[in-house]
Amino acid sequence: MIKIGIVGGTGYTGVELLRILAVHPEAQVQCITSRSEAGVPVADMYPNLRGHFDLAFSEPDPAVLAGCDLVFFATPHGVAMRMVPELMAAGVRVVDLSADFRIKDLDTWARWYGMPHEAPEWAANAVYGLPEVARNAIRQAQLVANPGCYPTAIQLGFLPLLESGLVDASRLIADGKSGASGAGRQGKIGMLHGEVGESFKAYGASGHRHLPEIRQGLAAAAGQPVGVTFVPHLVPMVRGIEATLYAELTTADDFERLQGLYEDRYRDEPFVDVMPAGSHPETRSVRGANHCRMALHRQEDSKTVIVTSVIDNLVKGAAGQAVQNMNVMFGLDETLGLKAPALLP
Amino acid sequence: MIKIGIVGGTGYTGVELLRILAVHPEAQVQCITSRSEAGVPVADMYPNLRGHFDLAFSEPDPAVLAGCDLVFFATPHGVAMRMVPELMAAGVRVVDLSADFRIKDLDTWARWYGMPHEAPEWAANAVYGLPEVARNAIRQAQLVANPGCYPTAIQLGFLPLLESGLVDASRLIADGKSGASGAGRQGKIGMLHGEVGESFKAYGASGHRHLPEIRQGLAAAAGQPVGVTFVPHLVPMVRGIEATLYAELTTADDFERLQGLYEDRYRDEPFVDVMPAGSHPETRSVRGANHCRMALHRQEDSKTVIVTSVIDNLVKGAAGQAVQNMNVMFGLDETLGLKAPALLP
Amino acid sequence: MIKIGIVGGTGYTGVELLRILAVHPEAQVQCITSRSEAGVPVADMYPNLRGHFDLAFSEPDPAVLAGCDLVFFATPHGVAMRMVPELMAAGVRVVDLSADFRIKDLDTWARWYGMPHEAPEWAANAVYGLPEVARNAIRQAQLVANPGCYPTAIQLGFLPLLESGLVDASRLIADGKSGASGAGRQGKIGMLHGEVGESFKAYGASGHRHLPEIRQGLAAAAGQPVGVTFVPHLVPMVRGIEATLYAELTTADDFERLQGLYEDRYRDEPFVDVMPAGSHPETRSVRGANHCRMALHRQEDSKTVIVTSVIDNLVKGAAGQAVQNMNVMFGLDETLGLKAPALLP
Amino acid sequence: MIKIGIVGGTGYTGVELLRILAVHPEAQVQCITSRSEAGVPVADMYPNLRGHFDLAFSEPDPAVLAGCDLVFFATPHGVAMRMVPELMAAGVRVVDLSADFRIKDLDTWARWYGMPHEAPEWAANAVYGLPEVARNAIRQAQLVANPGCYPTAIQLGFLPLLESGLVDASRLIADGKSGASGAGRQGKIGMLHGEVGESFKAYGASGHRHLPEIRQGLAAAAGQPVGVTFVPHLVPMVRGIEATLYAELTTADDFERLQGLYEDRYRDEPFVDVMPAGSHPETRSVRGANHCRMALHRQEDSKTVIVTSVIDNLVKGAAGQAVQNMNVMFGLDETLGLKAPALLP
Repeated sequence: MIKIGIVGGTGYTGVELLRILAVHPEAQVQCITSRSEAGVPVADMYPNLRGHFDLAFSEPDPAVLAGCDLVFFATPHGVAMRMVPELMAAGVRVVDLSADFRIKDLDTWARWYGMPHEAPEWAANAVYGLPEVARNAIRQAQLVANPGCYPTAIQLGFLPLLESGLVDASRLIADGKSGASGAGRQGKIGMLHGEVGESFKAYGASGHRHLPEIRQGLAAAAGQPVGVTFVPHLVPMVRGIEATLYAELTTADDFERLQGLYEDRYRDEPFVDVMPAGSHPETRSVRGANHCRMALHRQEDSKTVIVTSVIDNLVKGAAGQAVQNMNVMFGLDETLGLKAPALLP
Repeated sequence: MIKIGIVGGTGYTGVELLRILAVHPEAQVQCITSRSEAGVPVADMYPNLRGHFDLAFSEPDPAVLAGCDLVFFATPHGVAMRMVPELMAAGVRVVDLSADFRIKDLDTWARWYGMPHEAPEWAANAVYGLPEVARNAIRQAQLVANPGCYPTAIQLGFLPLLESGLVDASRLIADGKSGASGAGRQGKIGMLHGEVGESFKAYGASGHRHLPEIRQGLAAAAGQPVGVTFVPHLVPMVRGIEATLYAELTTADDFERLQGLYEDRYRDEPFVDVMPAGSHPETRSVRGANHCRMALHRQEDSKTVIVTSVIDNLVKGAAGQAVQNMNVMFGLDETLGLKAPALLP
Repeated sequence: MIKIGIVGGTGYTGVELLRILAVHPEAQVQCITSRSEAGVPVADMYPNLRGHFDLAFSEPDPAVLAGCDLVFFATPHGVAMRMVPELMAAGVRVVDLSADFRIKDLDTWARWYGMPHEAPEWAANAVYGLPEVARNAIRQAQLVANPGCYPTAIQLGFLPLLESGLVDASRLIADGKSGASGAGRQGKIGMLHGEVGESFKAYGASGHRHLPEIRQGLAAAAGQPVGVTFVPHLVPMVRGIEATLYAELTTADDFERLQGLYEDRYRDEPFVDVMPAGSHPETRSVRGANHCRMALHRQEDSKTVIVTSVIDNLVKGAAGQAVQNMNVMFGLDETLGLKAPALLP
Repeated sequence: MIKIGIVGGTGYTGVELLRILAVHPEAQVQCITSRSEAGVPVADMYPNLRGHFDLAFSEPDPAVLAGCDLVFFATPHGVAMRMVPELMAAGVRVVDLSADFRIKDLDTWARWYGMPHEAPEWAANAVYGLPEVARNAIRQAQLVANPGCYPTAIQLGFLPLLESGLVDASRLIADGKSGASGAGRQGKIGMLHGEVGESFKAYGASGHRHLPEIRQGLAAAAGQPVGVTFVPHLVPMVRGIEATLYAELTTADDFERLQGLYEDRYRDEPFVDVMPAGSHPETRSVRGANHCRMALHRQEDSKTVIVTSVIDNLVKGAAGQAVQNMNVMFGLDETLGLKAPALLP
């Protein structure tokens, strides 16, 4: 059994980790920390866990964490980068669900996150944990930077196009939509049901923190810098991300090849499902599941390729992908604990 | 492996049976029937099942069904009563998720369902499948009538009060609220998102089909006829039932004993969770899970006991309870395939 | 033109007052106060008001308020009772939308609101502003206590039964359901979309602040103390309250007379709509409108009368009723500014 | 008073016309037709209209319609084109809310709507009723083709860019999102609350009927053919459309001029609100109102201009714009009956 620690477990990614690990046959949660809720049983805060965990939140204790095989960070940015070096020194493996180790260019990181990076050497060493791209590196990694939610849906949707060089990489558009759980579990007025319910809007349209992460991943796939515009939107629902992606084929004739290209690229991927061209993936088809479903579209004989891509922001966009990374890191079946179908309807 | 047939699989209880059985280690779905969708792969209709089932819907074939160990009926009322006798003769066991075999008084049944009952002998033999009441009978049963969704939440909430004789059984009130999936998957204008969304209303306030079923179950618990008023309401959400129950203590002093009474009654029940008095069970705390959570309340020193009880109408209120019944019938661990925590948030 | 001041305008009742007053032909908003948002144009916070108001929030200024004909308080409890005496002395009329002047028994008030009352003489003088009960008193009043949202829906639903003495007033049950805007516009975690969305629960089941207000109003109607149990619930929608009321007829034969009784009671009321017996009022049928719609139901020949009653919690349950009270106080047509139909769908 | 007829009044645009006309001081609804509901009072179907209309639905009667000053068609496509010629001959003016007269190229119309056009001479004469573009022509028109919902939000958002020639008109992208009422009030399984609720998806991504209408309008604004990709999405809410538009500046330096350009273009438009650059218009800010709100965005120094544009699909996207057109046609104040602020929250 892998001994698991979770740092910062009171948010939505924390409870989602617990939900998934509750039925994972090879993982045992040893501790889950929260300064503000120390002493509170996790099942008091999250009644869906009643009967599954006897655990209470505890103050973070370096000695206890150092005794774990794997520590997940489900903290706001800025926390993991301060605690990770000590865990690395202790030989503990870490999957960081926050943004601390996702961006390689630390000036960029500092600009978007408003603070200098405090663990630059580990930022350099961290493996960006998108298993569909970096499975082998993840297997060996001591520190995995778990991708953001939008970046997961958008990178998986664009990858085959960019890897194949069939589209103009300088003018990519990603129109993203997310449920409200993506904003976390903090008492912000703007995220009240009274504000979010029965309404729809864009946000961060002049620049969102996930943009540099998306750009970095797409550039790696393309083998060159990319130009990408990303506009996120808030959907009056709890879970789910949909991204509608637009790219321009350098030759319109290539469209017919794309379906095969996508199917080939993801044929062996357990968590990426390329639906028949023209399908419309729904976020509910991945609710609670670790899948990314996608489909290709073209309008008449246009050169514009459209990709629609859906994930559950808390699963493939956070806790599920973190457990997938854990499975890879520990040499387990990659789908262990992640096999249940999505909750539809 | 138990060989499973599902009759009428295109509705929400059908897909929910498949979702649960997809990861059940002892069950294998052999066939799933639908006259209207025969030939269509189930995963085309329900993309959450892509990768889980190769099965297509088929015309109901008596020979194929007769080769199953267990057949679930997920049909509108009136279908199972016509097909069950032949299956019974073939020695097949049946869990009927429809209303056909729930009511023992067939005049009552005929009045509420608008047709004469066509299998009266099997209506007499059928075991009403609320495992918390009839586990032993279910174990032996060839035909189990799976309870309705509201009746499950309401009976479980009232049972300890009625079995103990502490309340006036002649004036019980059950105020029920359900998500829209409870109305099934048929193209009714009244169930459009444009009609249901962002609104709340009672329906069936002058009499709902679940009333006689509730009355029958509560009378059995009380050992006498009961007077019960039941008003269902439609909530703008997909899944979940909450029932708020009101009963009057014959002696106000008895309130203090009630929490212990409830905890004792359900101590060994794997799927009933009595929360601390004063808790407020949320439907999301059971979303996708087979649990019923409940809590007791009193206002000042009133003689009125309040019980709030929640289930997922498609799980403990339908498909989950059906699988629980299957586990009981086949001597398996009752929680097999039903262990995953609810999806919260 | 009536010169209007609004104290505490940043919450949902504040913006709702502005929405209604924007098209009221006899009212002009002179000032709207907010300590935290002083200087911010109201249309920056509430873009639906762009083009309707040039006003900015301002620090509360006693001199400015004293220059108004009418001041609305849309503040948390505890604010109005401190400011009202000075306004009374200045001869300004006040409609207080908070709870400060609703309860006549100040010990009860202090117990439920956790502080001593600071303006007891005005609590005694205030008129409880339910126009369907106290129209004449409101006309003369200098200080009107605008009723709470649940109390409005519940009192209007029960009134004819209690005034007629046809039911047992000692055992009334009110099962209330409210959209999330009822909790106000404060950054509470429990009211996030991620917490409220796609879920349903009771809250305050052991006692809610609206209980003493409901009890006081029902007792006045009955001419005797009443026994009432009130359980509120949170619905995953923004606006709307539905209350399902249960009472027991002293003689079952009286049911037939009830429809006529209700229609007679409310025949001349512009904002109470008694639908045909057996109808199911929907909250959306009053969204944005000042109406209360209700209907009567009975199950078989039961002695239990069921009344379903709906309002928009922000309109008839707050700002609309406040403007109705203003119209009454200033001798205007009671429906002025309140004539537009509800927004359905 | 303008005598109004409404053909096909049972759908969402029909009830919305009634809601708006109920308080319009210069319009009187004489008849509202529905073959299927003939004889049913409109207030029985739409209880928000109780007390506002005594009218019942009636069979369409050419004589009665010919006696009206203005007839609105709120019918599925294919109906108006058969009835309009007779009304034109009778000198009646018509605003058609369906798609019958929106497209000038009738081969295109026939291809997208699956039938030949039956009134080609009137298709040629009809004025496309976007008042912000064609106010003068609308004033004189006998037949106005009321624009579609997406086309309204998208054209208004793109117009200043295209009229100014500052962007590459060959590669425009419009990512649209709509609430469920946009699909109308018919019993389609795909539009059930159980299917739409708590989920998000694209639809019609390979080509939607609004595409040729959008293309026609944008080409007229640009003075040349345009290349536009349009992907609509379904949002789990009832009302509202948001469109996020992407275009590429021919010179990046031009971005600074755009805000002024938009403000100038719409300065005198009563129903178009250009918010400060970087704002995020929400659909709720126009709920129930006839406004289109929009804002401009740029990411870093990109050449891509982003416009976010919101309307209420049933108001500025249908019935409200139809009444605006009526006001223009009859020489009334264009905002008559359309002045109330949106319902927020």
